[in-house]
Amino acid sequence: MAFDRADPRAVRLAARSGAFAGVTAGLAPGFVQGNVCILPRAFAADFRRYCERNPKPCPLIGVSEPGDPRLPSLGEDLDIRGDVPRYRVFRYGEVKGEVNDIHDLWSADMVAFVIGCSFSFEEALAEAGVPLRYVAEGKNVAMYLTNIETEPAGPFRGPMAVSMRPLTAANAILAVQITSRFPRAHGAPVHIGGPELIGIEDIDRPFAGDRIDVRPDELPVFWACGITPQAAVQRARPPICITHAPGHMLVTDRKNSEFAS
Amino acid sequence: MAFDRADPRAVRLAARSGAFAGVTAGLAPGFVQGNVCILPRAFAADFRRYCERNPKPCPLIGVSEPGDPRLPSLGEDLDIRGDVPRYRVFRYGEVKGEVNDIHDLWSADMVAFVIGCSFSFEEALAEAGVPLRYVAEGKNVAMYLTNIETEPAGPFRGPMAVSMRPLTAANAILAVQITSRFPRAHGAPVHIGGPELIGIEDIDRPFAGDRIDVRPDELPVFWACGITPQAAVQRARPPICITHAPGHMLVTDRKNSEFAS
Repeated sequence: MAFDRADPRAVRLAARSGAFAGVTAGLAPGFVQGNVCILPRAFAADFRRYCERNPKPCPLIGVSEPGDPRLPSLGEDLDIRGDVPRYRVFRYGEVKGEVNDIHDLWSADMVAFVIGCSFSFEEALAEAGVPLRYVAEGKNVAMYLTNIETEPAGPFRGPMAVSMRPLTAANAILAVQITSRFPRAHGAPVHIGGPELIGIEDIDRPFAGDRIDVRPDELPVFWACGITPQAAVQRARPPICITHAPGHMLVTDRKNSEFAS
Repeated sequence: MAFDRADPRAVRLAARSGAFAGVTAGLAPGFVQGNVCILPRAFAADFRRYCERNPKPCPLIGVSEPGDPRLPSLGEDLDIRGDVPRYRVFRYGEVKGEVNDIHDLWSADMVAFVIGCSFSFEEALAEAGVPLRYVAEGKNVAMYLTNIETEPAGPFRGPMAVSMRPLTAANAILAVQITSRFPRAHGAPVHIGGPELIGIEDIDRPFAGDRIDVRPDELPVFWACGITPQAAVQRARPPICITHAPGHMLVTDRKNSEFAS
């Protein structure tokens, strides 16, 4: 795995060659990473509408031409069939396995969607001195399903998923200001405070990721989360859907700063 | 009191003539209103530094020349000796009374300071559909002293005062985004959530203004408040200090939109 971990293209080439199949947190700092969702063409128009109607959980940052595995707006040489370090394969809405390459699964019928990711705003939070305890503790961010329904589009529907970061009030205010500048990375929080108000019964039992302490002087701050489309895919039950494996994002050549407004 | 209540100059002229001595909430919509603090020249340099060091509670929007009662940057004809509908007079830090005109108290030794006011951002909140219950209920906003110490300057020091508005989490997030655009009207909140974390022992007993319900689905949201300098004046004990009476603000010719960033 000898490659330049600061260079987004080098990360993609390492993934493409099979030399790298790990999580991408901390790689290519400053560059946008994306959630990936690949669907059959028959589902693509509805899924695009689903993303456009739900821009906080599903901020679209790239869509391929049908059958074309390239996404030149995100990286000149980018090839979605191998550039993600690890993929998850769904059939009829159920996880069937994980693979490191999808050349054999790709077909002329497929469309690839790339959705912004909170790594972009987390970099800005860290630069502003807002501490992210889950990062410091080497954990995955805590994720929950809520009772906030997304806007449906065709067969795609379901609850909004959120990620939670515990922050002091002063840092929560700063985090609202900073993340508002990143609409293509989930933007401002969707909720602050009482988890029960958005249908989360037990803050200590996340749906995905790791449990984290919320201290007495902190508020839980909730952002729309990029696992939301996976919940929608489970309801839409397409014959095939390929996503990135959690934490194994697509690394692009676009800069986080380009995506800030 | 027959005057054009939408015209800031007409409001000032009515105050100047003695025809109007009321509260200014809702008058001259769209125009900036200001807190007023008039001090002897010997205290002016320290007070200016105090404001500059504490821009959230004390955002300076105008300072007169010593002995000159005009503030042409806020209104071409503005005369601070009569244009405030009602004044409060402090001697050695203690309130000694209220008057409608200060021509007899003004001297060549005095400097007038004007400090931004939350009316500017409340207009933007209302336009964005964020409800302000104290306005709907015809009350004064609830104000508290906190354990947040301001940065001292010379004899001026003391706790930051805050105003509190109860909001749902979604509206609190929106309010952070909107008020951040008004740094000269106290800007973003200084605290959200537990009042005890900023030294407020009983949310039901405000230091000034009216008590307001915080409902189970709401967070108390706290902004730095323009009564902070009055607490500092009480500690500095200048031989004389003249402020506006609560709610009886200086109406200026500047537009709120000019002050938005």
